[in-house]
Amino acid sequence: MTENSTLLLDLTAATMVESPNPYGLIEDAAIAVVDGMIAWVGPRVDLPASFESLPRNSLGGRLVTPGLIDCHTHIVHGGDRAVEFEMRLNGASYEEVARAGGGIVSTVKATRAATEDELLTQALRRVDVLIAEGVTSIEVKSGYGLDIETELRMLRVARAIMANRPIRVMTTFLGAHATPAEYAGRNDAYIDEVCIPALRAAHAEGLVDAVDGFCEGIAFQPDQIARVFDVARELGLPVKLHAEQLSNLGGARLAASYGALSADHIEYLDEDGVKAMAESGTVAVILPGAFYTLRETQAPPIDLLRKHGVPMALATDLNPGTSPLNSLLLTLNMGCTLFRMTPEEALRGATQHAARALGLTDTGTIAAGQRAELAVWDIRHPAELAYRIGFNPLHSRIFGGKS
Amino acid sequence: MTENSTLLLDLTAATMVESPNPYGLIEDAAIAVVDGMIAWVGPRVDLPASFESLPRNSLGGRLVTPGLIDCHTHIVHGGDRAVEFEMRLNGASYEEVARAGGGIVSTVKATRAATEDELLTQALRRVDVLIAEGVTSIEVKSGYGLDIETELRMLRVARAIMANRPIRVMTTFLGAHATPAEYAGRNDAYIDEVCIPALRAAHAEGLVDAVDGFCEGIAFQPDQIARVFDVARELGLPVKLHAEQLSNLGGARLAASYGALSADHIEYLDEDGVKAMAESGTVAVILPGAFYTLRETQAPPIDLLRKHGVPMALATDLNPGTSPLNSLLLTLNMGCTLFRMTPEEALRGATQHAARALGLTDTGTIAAGQRAELAVWDIRHPAELAYRIGFNPLHSRIFGGKS
Ligand SMILES: [Zn+2]
Ligand SMILES: [Zn+2]
Repeated sequence: MTENSTLLLDLTAATMVESPNPYGLIEDAAIAVVDGMIAWVGPRVDLPASFESLPRNSLGGRLVTPGLIDCHTHIVHGGDRAVEFEMRLNGASYEEVARAGGGIVSTVKATRAATEDELLTQALRRVDVLIAEGVTSIEVKSGYGLDIETELRMLRVARAIMANRPIRVMTTFLGAHATPAEYAGRNDAYIDEVCIPALRAAHAEGLVDAVDGFCEGIAFQPDQIARVFDVARELGLPVKLHAEQLSNLGGARLAASYGALSADHIEYLDEDGVKAMAESGTVAVILPGAFYTLRETQAPPIDLLRKHGVPMALATDLNPGTSPLNSLLLTLNMGCTLFRMTPEEALRGATQHAARALGLTDTGTIAAGQRAELAVWDIRHPAELAYRIGFNPLHSRIFGGKS
Repeated sequence: MTENSTLLLDLTAATMVESPNPYGLIEDAAIAVVDGMIAWVGPRVDLPASFESLPRNSLGGRLVTPGLIDCHTHIVHGGDRAVEFEMRLNGASYEEVARAGGGIVSTVKATRAATEDELLTQALRRVDVLIAEGVTSIEVKSGYGLDIETELRMLRVARAIMANRPIRVMTTFLGAHATPAEYAGRNDAYIDEVCIPALRAAHAEGLVDAVDGFCEGIAFQPDQIARVFDVARELGLPVKLHAEQLSNLGGARLAASYGALSADHIEYLDEDGVKAMAESGTVAVILPGAFYTLRETQAPPIDLLRKHGVPMALATDLNPGTSPLNSLLLTLNMGCTLFRMTPEEALRGATQHAARALGLTDTGTIAAGQRAELAVWDIRHPAELAYRIGFNPLHSRIFGGKS
């Protein structure tokens, strides 16, 4: 036994394990943590005697959930887009914004210009806000380099977050995010000459946990995404896709055909696409921050996802352009308010199903054998997490068994 | 000179004073604070020699704005409505929620049952979140007691906030918020037997800075509001009104005829009402949190307010039912995203115009003669305050000249 071993008492556990109780709730629960892993969870009265000798930690009746998981972020990036935000609200057209150097181009420029240290410093400010909300795992994408060197630099920064903060980071290669100015009008050449070589180089350096793309009229066509996914398959890497955000190109179906971990956004997904995701076990990652920021009106097909049993995750999509949303708690509220998800679906979307969207099986619920990644809240009922707007009731966070 | 005197240097000041520069911006500015008041502000190079001897405080190039002002809150209340939020999202009808004891009735019940200490403790948790966002003044309404004793208790708690935290509180009597169950169907009797006597009693105790009402089909008719406003006028108290939120009953025009400080919500306000507000100098208090939570589709007439020069404030409307929004920064973003206000309008709405909505002339801008109530931000451009979602860049707050 180590300092990562403890017996958590005087708590209500929202285990998020499938159970007849909403939220997998256990009142007056105990959680035994041994060597940073959950060794036992259940009603206090049923605690096996062998755990009674662990160092005790009373949580004063508080609510404990799995540590939150943000399964879709672009948290590593240079610069911000506040001035562009202001220009638009002052009536500038997209053309005027573009002429002033705005749009994703400006983020690519700022990211290319930033050193690894600068990118890390900026990312950690945003990571710290998530940590303060009880987040214990995040996904981080590349995709603002769009050249081999900068794509790799972004992924190195993503890995460096883990060395600097008590949080788990899953990296995603997103070379197929946009076409850089130097390849304007030559998407295929960009895929062949930059994106795929960058993927191979990043993988060789051990920087890639999954491969993503942006399948949309303004980005890449399904056949271009498929070429990237073929390389991912060859390298043994799982895939995921930004799909059906603004139109229906059949991206989710394509992703499902590769056994994708997730299809993300999916506002325009149809029932055939939902069925394909259900068959392949692909998670629907719902991103209300972009929907809110872009003032979209077409909501993702929540009812169809429910009907076909597709697990739904919720994530910030934290990025400087279409979703400068730095709060996973607020994302829960948006999922409920904007898309009529239930508070339980929202919380599963930021725990159990978010873990699945990242291919993680050792976090996302409170159960024996899972890592001790937990959030302790000053609330009575888990619905409060989605109900409040801009209020963070975190009491403490446990990562690797340690507060 | 006291410890409340200091010379702030190495800063950009968004003074919010009317000036040819957006935000009344002064680059490389200095602010001289003497005895908790702003004695001078301007470009560093123009600083009068007499202030050079003040104790210096370098702000490292940061941005300084007036302390933020939340001019419409129901921050004192008992209980929460998370379970009702969850019931609705699980498909319960309004009738089912009401049968389960939900709605404003549940907040009235919880508020009546709470002691002064309990109400204060709960309110301070919410106040602390606003303070952490650089808020230096808030308005607090009664209106969940709906009996004489509890209305007065709420206002005493509002005053007690000031004794417990470095923040200014302006109190508003809102007896005409709803009709309690014991007066169901007898609105007029409630106004005469409870609301007006409670107002007189609260005023006699020095608890009332302004008088408010809720003019709406589901609340009170204009003639009932007018009876309350007549008493306010007799007592020398300024008025304001929840008006035109869900329909147009001419509430804003009524309020303007009493020279109201503000008309609040006003989604359904027409041009005649806007003109009436312009003539009476009444501030439009825009409340996007309720619009967002209730999923309304009719936005307030921002263009008409601009056209007629009606000052616009932005506030949280922090309340447990229709706007559990505990972030004024997020409110700025909502004002821009949902209502297309500009970031400068949004910031004026939480400083200069919010002060005016509270009848305060000594705060809300950075200018000689104003109180030293300031917010210091880790950002370069004031537009960043409205651009980010769920990210708080506050570095420090100055209240009464002290950090
Ligand atoms: Zn994304
Ligand atoms: Zn209100």
